[in-house]
Amino acid sequence: MSTATRFDLSQKDIPEAWYNIAADVPEPMPLHLHPGTQQPVPPEMMETIFSKGVVEQELSTERWIEMPEPVREVLALWRPTPLLRSVRLERALDTPAHIYYKYEGTSPAGSHKPNSAVPQAWYAKQAGIKRLATETGAGQWGSSLALACKLFDIECNVYMVGSSYRQKPYRRMAMETWGATVHASPSSETAFGRRFRAENPDTAGSLGVAISEAVEDTMTHPGTRYALGSVLNHVCLHQTVIGQEALRQMELAGEYPDVVIGCAGGGSNFAGIAFPFARRNLKEGCKTRLLAVEPSSCPSLTRGEYRYDFGDVAMTTPLLKMYTLGNDFMPPALHAGGLRYHGMAPTVSHLHSLGLIESRAYAQTEVFDAAALFARTEGLIPAPESSHAIKAAIDEALDAKKEGKPRVIVFNLSGHGLLDLTSYEAHLNGSLNM
Amino acid sequence: MSTATRFDLSQKDIPEAWYNIAADVPEPMPLHLHPGTQQPVPPEMMETIFSKGVVEQELSTERWIEMPEPVREVLALWRPTPLLRSVRLERALDTPAHIYYKYEGTSPAGSHKPNSAVPQAWYAKQAGIKRLATETGAGQWGSSLALACKLFDIECNVYMVGSSYRQKPYRRMAMETWGATVHASPSSETAFGRRFRAENPDTAGSLGVAISEAVEDTMTHPGTRYALGSVLNHVCLHQTVIGQEALRQMELAGEYPDVVIGCAGGGSNFAGIAFPFARRNLKEGCKTRLLAVEPSSCPSLTRGEYRYDFGDVAMTTPLLKMYTLGNDFMPPALHAGGLRYHGMAPTVSHLHSLGLIESRAYAQTEVFDAAALFARTEGLIPAPESSHAIKAAIDEALDAKKEGKPRVIVFNLSGHGLLDLTSYEAHLNGSLNM
Repeated sequence: MSTATRFDLSQKDIPEAWYNIAADVPEPMPLHLHPGTQQPVPPEMMETIFSKGVVEQELSTERWIEMPEPVREVLALWRPTPLLRSVRLERALDTPAHIYYKYEGTSPAGSHKPNSAVPQAWYAKQAGIKRLATETGAGQWGSSLALACKLFDIECNVYMVGSSYRQKPYRRMAMETWGATVHASPSSETAFGRRFRAENPDTAGSLGVAISEAVEDTMTHPGTRYALGSVLNHVCLHQTVIGQEALRQMELAGEYPDVVIGCAGGGSNFAGIAFPFARRNLKEGCKTRLLAVEPSSCPSLTRGEYRYDFGDVAMTTPLLKMYTLGNDFMPPALHAGGLRYHGMAPTVSHLHSLGLIESRAYAQTEVFDAAALFARTEGLIPAPESSHAIKAAIDEALDAKKEGKPRVIVFNLSGHGLLDLTSYEAHLNGSLNM
Repeated sequence: MSTATRFDLSQKDIPEAWYNIAADVPEPMPLHLHPGTQQPVPPEMMETIFSKGVVEQELSTERWIEMPEPVREVLALWRPTPLLRSVRLERALDTPAHIYYKYEGTSPAGSHKPNSAVPQAWYAKQAGIKRLATETGAGQWGSSLALACKLFDIECNVYMVGSSYRQKPYRRMAMETWGATVHASPSSETAFGRRFRAENPDTAGSLGVAISEAVEDTMTHPGTRYALGSVLNHVCLHQTVIGQEALRQMELAGEYPDVVIGCAGGGSNFAGIAFPFARRNLKEGCKTRLLAVEPSSCPSLTRGEYRYDFGDVAMTTPLLKMYTLGNDFMPPALHAGGLRYHGMAPTVSHLHSLGLIESRAYAQTEVFDAAALFARTEGLIPAPESSHAIKAAIDEALDAKKEGKPRVIVFNLSGHGLLDLTSYEAHLNGSLNM
């Protein structure tokens, strides 16, 4: 038997509780503010937009929040996810580093997003909500919520960033197969969408615009609540199943990471892999470096300001304390991957501002080069988003080689890229840039 | 803790040997014949087309054939694959049956096909072959061979059925991402392709035509060998990892199947799940029904003749004893799923002729209805091919309900349908028929 390269858990190892970093941060999390009063948003007000269960989680400082058994049962459709050591990539890089990846692409939607979509749909169901509205960029979140809503028999209404709606029809079709209704955003469904389209007839859309539409949809349809796929505390919370499983799996591998890496758009997939390791750093004196990686064309954490800002373009959300490029930021349409949000999760931002995590930005051509190398050594074609983490993992491994020292690297391969192959084709043809 | 619904193995449980049913059939397997002499094809002659290692396996009657460790290491990128019990589907059907599925869609190519592509590429490498030629229908096999060739540094040249090449660009892009060269078949690369195109200018292509092109390519390029993704004995052999793992996993589940189901085009995915159970039937007195399911638009096993026939249109292959619709059979272009081959694997055909397996055919609209029900209860969007097995599993479960008796059903979910979503859209729009 040669070296073990995969470390599998079984159903009983799916975490029974989510880990809430708000319990362990050295300074309290800044609260979300009401834009009018500049005071913390009261839970009752948040419950007009979000389901009660997730509002409680959004404001909680309990360290462990029990996962409802029906949620755990649905997660078992694809969890625990595999953790693998990428020996072929290590060989190609000729590095003394050991590179491990946690692979979230085995979910029905092909990414980590259902980890939060499932509890969000479940809490909505518990609160008697009949319909959820949301937005989606490339479609990873929208397809995940469509799936979760179907499993709990809730209507799902998705505003999809217009450029993706037109360029990536497959994820739209997946949402429809799971029974969701999908609108290209800006749409004619909302007053904001109609106005924005009239003022910007050639717009490619943006996540900020689509969020405004989904929030307006929620406010104007009784019995509807809004669901967000990243950024907020409860979403980051739900994703901690990733890091908790990875901790167990690294025990099976007999190593502990020197660095843990995740790509960061809204921040939830990074939070998911990193926060359980951050807890070890904060409470048990571990020294793992935690590295968030973003695209240089949407560099909220590396180039943004840390301040209160709106979550959307129409300024309808509470104010969130976060690294932001401004709520009206529009990423260049040429940018192929997701990770297009103007702000960064308040929890991730808070840890970054305290110097507890690192950040780095990469241009998309170097990210696709890393993605292609990964596909050609490890087999899996990674999502463009996840490939930012791959690029950083490769650079860490090359740095270890330069130093001539071992380094244990763990990164989150948050999804596969089978529905992003048009971007790969553009890369192979040399028509991607930036 | 509620009922267990998934049964995971670990890396050490990947089978160490393939199971060869030729050792256990009650009557010897009919041999492949040379079309000129009508005598068994000598191995030396087969080695002008196939790599030496797989020719030995094609003719072997050894019961267990050891899997080379480098092959086992690559399979560990996605194996062992999960086995799940579909409690949500059972609930939707209100059936006393227990329905289990073995899920092969976690491979980088999204199907079971890499189980054979990897050893085929490895044996080619061992024989000093620099280049493999093959054909592919919807692209499942071509993308799997592209992946395997890249991992072992072999050139890969794929002839893809023209209609799929045009309608399913994503799998072509996957092949190119893995470094393969892909031609729409009939192509201008081969004399046969040029002639066929001249005589049939509006042709959608077929697997039989694409095979003729790949074989001609092999014969006219020194250092090239041909690789086939189904039908032949060695391919069925390689797929037995599926059923061997499923046997172990059903032990974990504490049940033994009354019926094992696989879809059948060329036959290898059915063989993969069924043959290890067939061994139990033949050697240990078990009574599991083995059910092969095919599309009614390409019904080789249910409507074909059992006789010697060519594997391709140009009549360049050896004669194989199989159920066949005739080597020039063209499935209707409207048929959305794969499973378009005119013949059935000689091993599957042999067992069928001996009454050891059952067969059934379904129309594509009822298959897509089953697929949509599965997607909306179990989450995963299944490949159209695999959905034939789902349809049969549902019918078995409904039959058990009618009888008011339990039934343990295991089927092979051989791949996901994320790259087949255009067919789902057509189904949802009502534009699929037959």
